[in-house]
Amino acid sequence: MKLVSYQVKNSLSPNRMGAAFNNKVVDLNQAYYQMLVEQKEEDMAMAVDSLMPADPDQFYALGKLGLSRAEETYHYMKENAISEYAYERDEVVLGTPVPTPSKIICIGTNYKDHVLEMKSEIPKFPVLFAKFNNALIGPEDAIEKAPATDKLDYEVELAVVIGKRASHAKKEDALDYIAGYTIGNDISARDLQKRTPQWLQGKSLDRSTPVGPWIVTTDEIQDPSALTVKSFVNGEKRQESNTEHLIFDVPYLIEFISELITLEPGDVILTGTPHGVGFAMDPPQLLQEGDTVTLEIEGIGTLENKVVRKK
Amino acid sequence: MKLVSYQVKNSLSPNRMGAAFNNKVVDLNQAYYQMLVEQKEEDMAMAVDSLMPADPDQFYALGKLGLSRAEETYHYMKENAISEYAYERDEVVLGTPVPTPSKIICIGTNYKDHVLEMKSEIPKFPVLFAKFNNALIGPEDAIEKAPATDKLDYEVELAVVIGKRASHAKKEDALDYIAGYTIGNDISARDLQKRTPQWLQGKSLDRSTPVGPWIVTTDEIQDPSALTVKSFVNGEKRQESNTEHLIFDVPYLIEFISELITLEPGDVILTGTPHGVGFAMDPPQLLQEGDTVTLEIEGIGTLENKVVRKK
Repeated sequence: MKLVSYQVKNSLSPNRMGAAFNNKVVDLNQAYYQMLVEQKEEDMAMAVDSLMPADPDQFYALGKLGLSRAEETYHYMKENAISEYAYERDEVVLGTPVPTPSKIICIGTNYKDHVLEMKSEIPKFPVLFAKFNNALIGPEDAIEKAPATDKLDYEVELAVVIGKRASHAKKEDALDYIAGYTIGNDISARDLQKRTPQWLQGKSLDRSTPVGPWIVTTDEIQDPSALTVKSFVNGEKRQESNTEHLIFDVPYLIEFISELITLEPGDVILTGTPHGVGFAMDPPQLLQEGDTVTLEIEGIGTLENKVVRKK
Repeated sequence: MKLVSYQVKNSLSPNRMGAAFNNKVVDLNQAYYQMLVEQKEEDMAMAVDSLMPADPDQFYALGKLGLSRAEETYHYMKENAISEYAYERDEVVLGTPVPTPSKIICIGTNYKDHVLEMKSEIPKFPVLFAKFNNALIGPEDAIEKAPATDKLDYEVELAVVIGKRASHAKKEDALDYIAGYTIGNDISARDLQKRTPQWLQGKSLDRSTPVGPWIVTTDEIQDPSALTVKSFVNGEKRQESNTEHLIFDVPYLIEFISELITLEPGDVILTGTPHGVGFAMDPPQLLQEGDTVTLEIEGIGTLENKVVRKK
């Protein structure tokens, strides 16, 4: 199942939870209501807004309960060919799948070839750093290049979305804590990232970090350690690797982080980028206004965003 | 005015906005309602929960509107000696003043003497790093020492709470964007902080970071650059300095950060700690279970927390 946050084009209503399906987007709150009515579950239908919140953040806060209701609804829609509450893909705009996660935890230097190109050291422990929600944009938004930076760079990353509160999780069980996977572009202003010893200021610029286009649930991606990841700038391939080369894989990261920091449903982990970033090219090839960055991850899809001058 | 987040002892209700006043805590939502009723403002009284939300996060999200209503209510209570909706200080428990800020931005190495004791370099630009909300605790909570660290350390810091959305703010106007000031203990697990180049994992342990006891509004602290800051462990003085020694002062920090990252009402900036941290003592004096850490900042008050083993 592909979970989206969507808005009908030109509407002023807030983003709603949807499932993308056959080039359509189905509203999960409304489809769940219809399913309950058809199943004569009137008491549950009355409580639809708390059982299947339309608001994406509230939906993810429900954790596995919301996810299993979404799954049930999704199969019901497909089996019964429900077309009500479904929009054509071009009638809607997709937003950041989880609009306001309580945390965005990024992993630095997590592919060996990238460590070498950045003249960094192979880490003994996962390198954790943060982004804030001000940085998030959706799959149809533009990456805003702030006047403060001349060295904006792309980084394709597998993004993990947490589906269940995780504290002291073991790596053997780690996949149970995942809602699904999406693509993150860990846009980095190299000049700002490196002018102090801590990277935050180069990593969390307003409206810089695309995530999406959707969250692919764990039934469709059983193994996050075997996915091809690629990036392109204006169609030219820049990065190509596979998550099998992660120094610290997804289960290990969940064990490591949750030993220190409780992960909440909706939290996002950006797992690190492979070699091929623009900063490390000779000469460096940084992002300019007008560039198009296209990211692909196997089993998830494509995340493509233009770069514009910050408004 | 001293703004608190409080809960009546042994109640299960969520924390509510209050003002601390003559060793009492007044419920702002209820007091505002009473004021409106007495002023025959019935339409506004009907809308009290949106005009003066009881929930602290919703209150701060209103920005200056909520703050000015709180100010009006506070003066009305004092002038009319209103005792309804007031609790004795020992009938309530104070929580983290802003329970879930959208960002906690910390400034590293921002007092020269601390830079030297940490064998760091005088920064040319403010060093920004993050904490997440999982770390926050209130003034009556205990600092939880996780089994993962043997080197837990204290850091007294002036904490700035944002009162108005700030993007590209100028330092001349920066104080207009502030709701008030409180005390933060930027508890740091030195072993985890330093085992990778990025500090996050040593700075955001679950339930490690006390903030409080209240937010002193800007009418009471006109100049954040002239406040004595002190810390004590089990009554022994460890740190003593003054915010006049900040390398980057509060107005500069707001200009600097808001150029890159939009600050939202309720966001917290921890402005850095002076010298005297336990890690830099010879021999190092790190925090142990049972220790009491007491922080004092002039014009704000005292923040005192015990250290316990993580549950």
